[in-house]
Amino acid sequence: MATESTPFITPEALLAHWQGHRRLTRRVIDAFPEEKLFTFSVGGMRPFGELAMEIITMGVPMVRGAISGEWDAPTSRDPRPKAEVLRLWDESSEQLAALWPQIPPQRFLETLTAFGQYTDVLHELILYVIDNEIHHRGQGYVYLRALGIAPPPFYDRS
Amino acid sequence: MATESTPFITPEALLAHWQGHRRLTRRVIDAFPEEKLFTFSVGGMRPFGELAMEIITMGVPMVRGAISGEWDAPTSRDPRPKAEVLRLWDESSEQLAALWPQIPPQRFLETLTAFGQYTDVLHELILYVIDNEIHHRGQGYVYLRALGIAPPPFYDRS
Repeated sequence: MATESTPFITPEALLAHWQGHRRLTRRVIDAFPEEKLFTFSVGGMRPFGELAMEIITMGVPMVRGAISGEWDAPTSRDPRPKAEVLRLWDESSEQLAALWPQIPPQRFLETLTAFGQYTDVLHELILYVIDNEIHHRGQGYVYLRALGIAPPPFYDRS
Repeated sequence: MATESTPFITPEALLAHWQGHRRLTRRVIDAFPEEKLFTFSVGGMRPFGELAMEIITMGVPMVRGAISGEWDAPTSRDPRPKAEVLRLWDESSEQLAALWPQIPPQRFLETLTAFGQYTDVLHELILYVIDNEIHHRGQGYVYLRALGIAPPPFYDRS
């Protein structure tokens, strides 16, 4: 039987998994025409640019908070040029890589309150951020198809 | 620093996380009107009923294969009544709960070939199944909104 010390996945492997998702999401952002990124949506939902900015405001702030106990006020999610979104995206990916090893390993199994309001075990809080990215990216795939654009393959995380 | 034996998450917690996602996906299936489940889509993509059947054919067969080394031929993904999709869904959730503890804990870190063609570490193969469910469910949220139906809240996994 598994015990508290049996990993389903280690922290290092989870970061690699996350960064794979981030590479795919970056390709989805980049697949949108500049003029559609913050304007186009389906069914009255938010445009993909806003979703991408939401994802940016969740990842690094979550990891930084898990290390320091300090929770950033969210960055603006206002429309901006695609190149700027991609620049912020890449900056976030680099920050994640630098911050992740600073999380004390035992902390992943500890309960904490993120952003002053979300109380859960740290691994659940982090999986929520990743799952939210996958969820909104799935939404982005539909937007791209509705625009007649083939999205990047889901299985390719390189 | 984290080591091979430092868990980001344990197998038990990962199963609980997965079952939470499955409860949410079940509500998304159930939110579709009967006559739209296998007919409606956006941008020429597959209807949500087909995606739900795909998810059903991936989860239990992956876990069963990880235990036994035997890989089922996929179940048909043909249209069927919503009640039948939900029945198969619930059956899968029960089978997952029963099968999961039979996976030897070390196996999650081992490399294997699923369905004769997907070679990866087992935790990556399982995360792929879960991520694929989240991805397609995000697609389902757009379909529901396009139909004028409010999808269930993403954060509620109860």
